[in-house]
Amino acid sequence: MSAAARGLENVVVGSTRLSRVDGEAGSLVIGGFPVEELAPRARFEEVLFLLWRDRLPTGPELADLRNGLAAARALPKATLAVLAHAAAAGLDAMDALRLGVASLPLADPDLARTELDGEPRAANERRGLALVAATSAIVASFHRLRGGEAPVAPDPALDHAANHLFMLRGERPDPAAARALETYLNTTIDHGLNASTFTARVIVSTRSDLVSAVAGAIGALKGPLHGGAPGPALDLVLALRDEARREERPLAEVAEREVRRIVREGGRIMGFGHRVYRVRDPRADVLGAALDTFAPAAGGELLADAQRVEAVILRVLAETKPGRRLDTNVEFYTALLLHGIGLPADLFTATFAVARVGGWVAHAFEQIAEGRLIRPSVHYAGETSRRWQPLEARAA
Amino acid sequence: MSAAARGLENVVVGSTRLSRVDGEAGSLVIGGFPVEELAPRARFEEVLFLLWRDRLPTGPELADLRNGLAAARALPKATLAVLAHAAAAGLDAMDALRLGVASLPLADPDLARTELDGEPRAANERRGLALVAATSAIVASFHRLRGGEAPVAPDPALDHAANHLFMLRGERPDPAAARALETYLNTTIDHGLNASTFTARVIVSTRSDLVSAVAGAIGALKGPLHGGAPGPALDLVLALRDEARREERPLAEVAEREVRRIVREGGRIMGFGHRVYRVRDPRADVLGAALDTFAPAAGGELLADAQRVEAVILRVLAETKPGRRLDTNVEFYTALLLHGIGLPADLFTATFAVARVGGWVAHAFEQIAEGRLIRPSVHYAGETSRRWQPLEARAA
Repeated sequence: MSAAARGLENVVVGSTRLSRVDGEAGSLVIGGFPVEELAPRARFEEVLFLLWRDRLPTGPELADLRNGLAAARALPKATLAVLAHAAAAGLDAMDALRLGVASLPLADPDLARTELDGEPRAANERRGLALVAATSAIVASFHRLRGGEAPVAPDPALDHAANHLFMLRGERPDPAAARALETYLNTTIDHGLNASTFTARVIVSTRSDLVSAVAGAIGALKGPLHGGAPGPALDLVLALRDEARREERPLAEVAEREVRRIVREGGRIMGFGHRVYRVRDPRADVLGAALDTFAPAAGGELLADAQRVEAVILRVLAETKPGRRLDTNVEFYTALLLHGIGLPADLFTATFAVARVGGWVAHAFEQIAEGRLIRPSVHYAGETSRRWQPLEARAA
Repeated sequence: MSAAARGLENVVVGSTRLSRVDGEAGSLVIGGFPVEELAPRARFEEVLFLLWRDRLPTGPELADLRNGLAAARALPKATLAVLAHAAAAGLDAMDALRLGVASLPLADPDLARTELDGEPRAANERRGLALVAATSAIVASFHRLRGGEAPVAPDPALDHAANHLFMLRGERPDPAAARALETYLNTTIDHGLNASTFTARVIVSTRSDLVSAVAGAIGALKGPLHGGAPGPALDLVLALRDEARREERPLAEVAEREVRRIVREGGRIMGFGHRVYRVRDPRADVLGAALDTFAPAAGGELLADAQRVEAVILRVLAETKPGRRLDTNVEFYTALLLHGIGLPADLFTATFAVARVGGWVAHAFEQIAEGRLIRPSVHYAGETSRRWQPLEARAA
C-alpha cells in the first residue's frame, strides 16, 4: 500500500461539474465561475441555483428559490425542543446541529425519503432547500438558546445570509455585515471532494436520503482536520496582539519571536498549509477583499494586525520549512471575517456548515444522477485461518 | 472516467486486519477466522474483542468487556424522550436509531470527543462499548415505544444477544433464539469496506468523534443498495407461499411461474446477487445452518419452503441470466433467520446495525491508528471561466 493511495490523495473517484480545485495553480472554480468572479457578486441563493442547475437563475426562478428557502426556515417544535436540551447540556454547536438535523423527519418524514433517483427534480429540490434552510435556522436558534435567549422567528423579507444574522441576533443586520457573510458562504459552499462532501456522496450512493447525507457530512466536517481549525487560527493573532500590548513591543517583533518558538518546538501554525493547495488558497484573497470593504465597520485595526502577523508567519515558514510551501489557507481569513462580523469562535465550524450544506446537497443530487454505489476495495493484512479455541484453552 | 473507477470498485483504499471478503472464492474471514469457524461458536462479546484487539479474550478480559457493555445499556432519559417522539411521529427504525445515537452526547458529552488518536485505548474502548450497547438498546426501546409498550431495562446477567431480545420483549428469550441471533450478529459484524464502514472511516479520518462515525454509517446502511433489502427478500417467499395456498398448487410450481414473470418484466429478485460475491455468499450458509438447528422452534416449514423457492430462483436466474452469476446472498437467509426469531421485517435493517456497529467502531479504531485524512480527487467536467451577468442581463 503506497502512502499516496492510503488517503485516496491521487485517486480520481468520479466526475463533477460543481467545483474545480487546482491546488498547483491556486485556483478554485465554482459552478463554472472563478471564485473571485462569483463570490463577491452573487446572492447565496443564486449560487445554490447555479450548483443545482448549472446556470444562474432568471428573476422568477430566483424568486421561487427565495420563497422556498424562506418557507422552510421556521423550525418545528420538536427540533427546537431538542436544541433546548442540547443547549442545556452544553453540547458543541456541531453536535447540536447534527441532532437538530436528525430530528427534522419528526415533523417532515418526507425529508427521510430514500431512493431519490425515482423522484421528480422539484421534489428533491424542495428537500434540499429544507435542509439548507434548517441548517442555518438550527445553528442560529441553538446559539440563542445556549445564551439564554429565545429563538428568533425568520424574516421572509430577508435574503439567506441576512436572515441568518437576523435569527442569531434578533435585529436586522448591517448590510455590509450581511454581504460579508454572504461572500463567505459563497466562497466556501463547495470545494471538490473534501471529506464531508465525499461522506455525503458515499451515503446517498446507497440510495439513502438527504438527512442521512447531511447528518453524516456534519460529522465529517466536525473533525479538526477538516472544518475544525478556524478558531485556533484567530486565537494566535489575538494572543500575539495581547502579548505585544503587555510587553509594549511592536506586534511584528513579538510575532516573529513567538512563531519561531512554535515552529522550533514542533508546534503547528493553524491557518497555513492545506492538503490540496501548494500555493496561496484563492479563497483567502476573496475573504481578505470582503474583509477589506467591511473593515471600517468591524475595526480595521484587527485586519491590519492580522496581516502583519500573516506576513511574519509566511516569512518564517518559508525560511524554516523551505520545501513545504505552507501558504495562507482559507481558515486564517475565515476566522478574521467571521470574527469581524461578530460571530463567536465556537460557531465558526457550524457557520462553515451553513455554507457547505449547499454543496453537500448539490453533490447528493449529482451522485443520485450518477446512480452508482461507492464501495472501494481494501487490502487485507491479517491472518486467514485461525482455529477456534474454547475459553478455557486460551493462554492468559 | 472508467466505469470501474466510478464506484471505487477496484480501487484499494487502504489496509485492514478486520475482515477479508473474497468474492471470487466466496469466502469471508473475520478477525483471522473463517466466518463459518467463528460465527456459530463465539459470543458476540468475543468477536467484538477479537476485532478490537486482534485475538480472542481470556476469561477475565471477556468478563471486563461484558461488564462494560452491560453498564452502558441503560439509555439516558433524553434519548428515551426523543425515541418516544420518534415513535409517535411514525419514524422509520433507522431514522429513530440515528436520532437516538445523535442524542447520546446530551447525557455523555465525552462520547462526542474528537482527536481520539491522543486518547488512551481504554478510554476509546469505553466509548466504543457505549455505542455498541446503545445501538442495541435504542433499537429495542424504539420498537417497544412504537408498539405502545414501555421500554425494558437491561438485564446485566444476560449476554448481548440475549439481552437484545429481552429488551425487545420484556421476557427472557429461548436460548436457541438468542444463539441464532448471536450467530447472525457475529456473521454480519464486519464485511470489508462496505459503504457504511467506509463512511465511518472517512468521518473519523478528519479526527472527528465516534458518534459522528456511527451516525454517518447508520445513514449509509439505511440505503436500499446497502442494508435495505432483507425485508423484500422475505416478502417474496411469503407472497409465493400465500399464492400457492390460494391456488392450491405446489409451491415450486407457483414459484417457477412467478419468478419467470418477474425476470421477464425486468424486475429484481431481492436476496440474490451481490456487488462483491460472484459465487454463493458464505454468510448465507452460516445463517442457513443456524436456522437449521433453530428451525423446530421457529417453524421448520417456512425454512423448507424458502429452500424450495431458493432452488427455483437459482435455477431460473442461471437459465435466464447465464452470465450474471446471481447466487443467494446474505439477505435471503437474514430475512428467514430474523423472521424465525420473531423480529418484524421493519426492524431487519436496524438489527443489521446492531451487529455492524461493532465493525464500524473497529474500523474507526483502525483508521485512528492509521492517522490519515481520506480525501480523494475528482475529475472536473464543467466550465471554468464563466463571467458574471447581473440578473437583468440573463436570458429567460
